Amino acid sequence: MEGQKILVNGERLKASLEKFADFGRTENNGVTRLALSKEDEEARNYFQSCCEELGMTISIDDMGNMYALLEGETEKPPIVMGSHLDSVKKGGRFDGVFGVAAGLEVIRTIVDNNIKPMIPLMLVNFTNEEGARFEPSMMASGVITGKFNKELMMQKRDENGISFEQALKSIGYDGDYNNRLKKATALLEMHIEQGPVLEAEKLNIGIVECVVGMVCYEITVSGDSNHAGTTPMSMRNDALFAANNVITQIREKLGKLDKELVFTIGRMNTYPNIHTVIPNKVVFTLEARHKDTLIMKQVESVIKALDTTAELEGCSMTAIKLWDRNTVWFDETILEHIEKSVNSLKYSYKTMASGAGHDAQFMASIVPTAMIFVPSINGKSHCEEELTRWEDCEKGVNLLLETVLSLEK
Amino acid sequence: MEGQKILVNGERLKASLEKFADFGRTENNGVTRLALSKEDEEARNYFQSCCEELGMTISIDDMGNMYALLEGETEKPPIVMGSHLDSVKKGGRFDGVFGVAAGLEVIRTIVDNNIKPMIPLMLVNFTNEEGARFEPSMMASGVITGKFNKELMMQKRDENGISFEQALKSIGYDGDYNNRLKKATALLEMHIEQGPVLEAEKLNIGIVECVVGMVCYEITVSGDSNHAGTTPMSMRNDALFAANNVITQIREKLGKLDKELVFTIGRMNTYPNIHTVIPNKVVFTLEARHKDTLIMKQVESVIKALDTTAELEGCSMTAIKLWDRNTVWFDETILEHIEKSVNSLKYSYKTMASGAGHDAQFMASIVPTAMIFVPSINGKSHCEEELTRWEDCEKGVNLLLETVLSLEK
Repeated sequence: MEGQKILVNGERLKASLEKFADFGRTENNGVTRLALSKEDEEARNYFQSCCEELGMTISIDDMGNMYALLEGETEKPPIVMGSHLDSVKKGGRFDGVFGVAAGLEVIRTIVDNNIKPMIPLMLVNFTNEEGARFEPSMMASGVITGKFNKELMMQKRDENGISFEQALKSIGYDGDYNNRLKKATALLEMHIEQGPVLEAEKLNIGIVECVVGMVCYEITVSGDSNHAGTTPMSMRNDALFAANNVITQIREKLGKLDKELVFTIGRMNTYPNIHTVIPNKVVFTLEARHKDTLIMKQVESVIKALDTTAELEGCSMTAIKLWDRNTVWFDETILEHIEKSVNSLKYSYKTMASGAGHDAQFMASIVPTAMIFVPSINGKSHCEEELTRWEDCEKGVNLLLETVLSLEK
Repeated sequence: MEGQKILVNGERLKASLEKFADFGRTENNGVTRLALSKEDEEARNYFQSCCEELGMTISIDDMGNMYALLEGETEKPPIVMGSHLDSVKKGGRFDGVFGVAAGLEVIRTIVDNNIKPMIPLMLVNFTNEEGARFEPSMMASGVITGKFNKELMMQKRDENGISFEQALKSIGYDGDYNNRLKKATALLEMHIEQGPVLEAEKLNIGIVECVVGMVCYEITVSGDSNHAGTTPMSMRNDALFAANNVITQIREKLGKLDKELVFTIGRMNTYPNIHTVIPNKVVFTLEARHKDTLIMKQVESVIKALDTTAELEGCSMTAIKLWDRNTVWFDETILEHIEKSVNSLKYSYKTMASGAGHDAQFMASIVPTAMIFVPSINGKSHCEEELTRWEDCEKGVNLLLETVLSLEK
C-alpha cells in the first residue's frame, strides 16, 4: 500500500521557490517583495500563468486576493491551499510564498497523476499579509472576514503617500467583491515555523492547533528628574531604577506561570535620556502570548498588581492595555486529517501553537481552517538568513498533498 | 563687636536679581539667557553700568570674560568674586547670576560704608558656563586655565550654525588676551546648591571644599533579536533582560560602597525597539561621582567585573569609559576664612562637596579658589522652578562680604 503513495516532485518545488525568489531577490539571497509593488505584481503574474497552465480558473476579489480553481467532479466548496506572496523589506525566500508554492506543487502532482478531484481544489494568494508597506498586517484576510473596515484599509498609505487603493489599481489586481472566498470545505495554510522549536526538537512537521492569544501593555514608570551630581541617592525618585525593579518583578511573577508562556519587553524609552540627568520617566511595552485563556488572565492579574508588588522607590506606575486578541483554535476535523496523514508518511511531528499571526487565524472564523509548519533554521524569519531545508520543504508538501487527498475521500 | 558687623542690603540684592531676571525672563518666571545672545548682551551691559557707577574699571578678555576692578590701597592681586550670567534654555533666576549679583552687592556695601580695600576687589562674569548654546560647559574658564584649546572653542557652532567667535564679536565682547585673569589673592564663587541637601538639613550655608570627581561609562549588552511570539523563553538571548540583571548588580554593588557616592543611569536605548521583537542590544550610560579617589577606583573595579558578577543569560557585555575627571579640592586657607566668617555670623552650615561642575573648578588650578552654596528649594535647578529664598540669598551674601573683609585683613 505505502509503496503506492503519490509523492510531490522535490526538485520542481525547489525550482518553483527559487523562481518566486527572483521577484525581488536581494544581494544576500533574501527577498524584498512589498505588497502591490512591481515585484509583487511580477510574482502574481507568474503565479497566475502557472495556474492557467494547469487548467485552473483565476479570479480576483476587491482586495486583490487571488483564487485559482481546479474544477472537481462535484460542486462542493473547495479545499483551499495557500498563503501570501508579499514579504517584508529584506525578508526571506520562504515566509508566505512557501504556502503558495506548496499548493501549486500539490496541484501539479495531482494533475500529473491524472487525479480528478471530487471536491474542487483552490489556491489562494492573500494580499498584504505582512503589512510592511501598508499597515496593518493580514489586511486582506481581515477585510474579507469582517475584522477590518474595507474603506479604511483602502486609504492606508505607504511611506511615499501612495494609498493601498491606488497601488492595487496600478498593478491591475483590483477585482470583484463577489469573488471573495466565502465557503470552503477546508483551508490549509502551510508556513515556515518562524521559531526554533521544530529544529531544536529535530522534528519534520508542526501540526498547528491554534494561533495563540496575546496581550500588549504599555507600562509607564514616573519619577523626578534631578541633577545626577547634586542629588543624594536617598533623595532620588529615579524612574529607571524603579522600572528595573518592575521588570525584575515581571520576570519573577510571569516566569512562574507556565513554560509555554512567552513575554517580551521589546520597546523601552527613557526620558529625558541625558547621561547627567536622573530619569523622570521610563515607558516600555510588555507583550505576552499563550494559548490558554486562564494563563492569559493570570498574566493580566500580575500586570495589574505590579504597583503593589514591585518596589517603586518613590515613583509611580501605570499599565495601559494597548490591545489583546484571543487564541484562535483551528478545525479539529482537519487537524485529524493532518495527523492521520503525517502518521501515514511516518514523518516526525508535534502538535503546537503558532506564536505569530497568519491569514489562517482570520479565515478560521468563516471556513474550517488549519495550518502546517515546517522547521525554520535557527528560528530566523523576516530576515535574509531565513531558511528551511529543501528536504523539509518537500516533506511538508507531501503532507499537504496527503491531507488534501484524505479530505477528498 | 557683633552689633557693628557690616551687613548687605537684602532688598537691593533682591531688586538686583529681579533686574537681571528681566533679561530673558520666561512666561513661568524662569530665564532663557543663552551665552552671547541678545539677552546675555543686555545683562552684560547692565552689569557693566552697575560696576562703572561704583567707580570700577571694566576689562574684557579674548573669551569675553568680564572683569570689574575696584582699586585697593595696595597692588596685590585682587580678591575676585563672581560666576556667570548665561543660563540654559528655560533655566532659573539664580544659577550663575546669583554669584555675580552677590559680588555686586558686596562691592556696593563696601562702597556705601566708605571702606577702602587694601587688596583690590574684582567682579568676574565668566562667558558660557552652561554650554547650552555652544558646547562644552565652562568653556571660557576652561580656555583661560588651559583646559580647552581656544581656536577649537572659537569654531564651536550653535544650532543655527553661528560660531562662538561670530557671536562674541556680534555682541561686542571680544576683548584682549592680555586681560585674562592670571593672578588673584582669592577667587570666591557663590552659587546655589542645585541639590536638596541644605534644604533637607535646614542649613543656611554650604562651604564647598571640592568639586567631586566623576567617571562615565557606556555599557552595551548584546543578545539576539528574534520573534516575540515564536521563540520560547528558554531559547532567547534577550539583551533587555540581561541589561536588567546588570543594572540590578550595579545597584547592589555600588550601593554598598559609600553613602555619599551618587550614580546614575541617565541614558538608555533599546534596539531594535519594536514591541514584537526581542531586543538584541541595550546601551546605557553609568555615571558615578565621589570626592574620594579610592571610592572612585572601587566603582571602576565593580564596573569592570560586571560581566562576571551579573547574570548575562547568554548575552555579552562591554563597558567603555567615556571620560573621567578627578576631584578638585579648594584652597584650605580660603575655606578657613569662610568657616571663621560663617561662625561669626552664627549661620548654620555644613562643609560639603559640589556634585555639579563650576568655573571655580577650572580656576582653582591657577588661583586660590573656593565656593559657597546657598539652599535650592527642592534641589531644583536648570528649570523655571529653580528657587532660593531671599533670606537665604541675603545670608549667603553677608557671608561673602564677611569672608572678603576677613581676607582683606
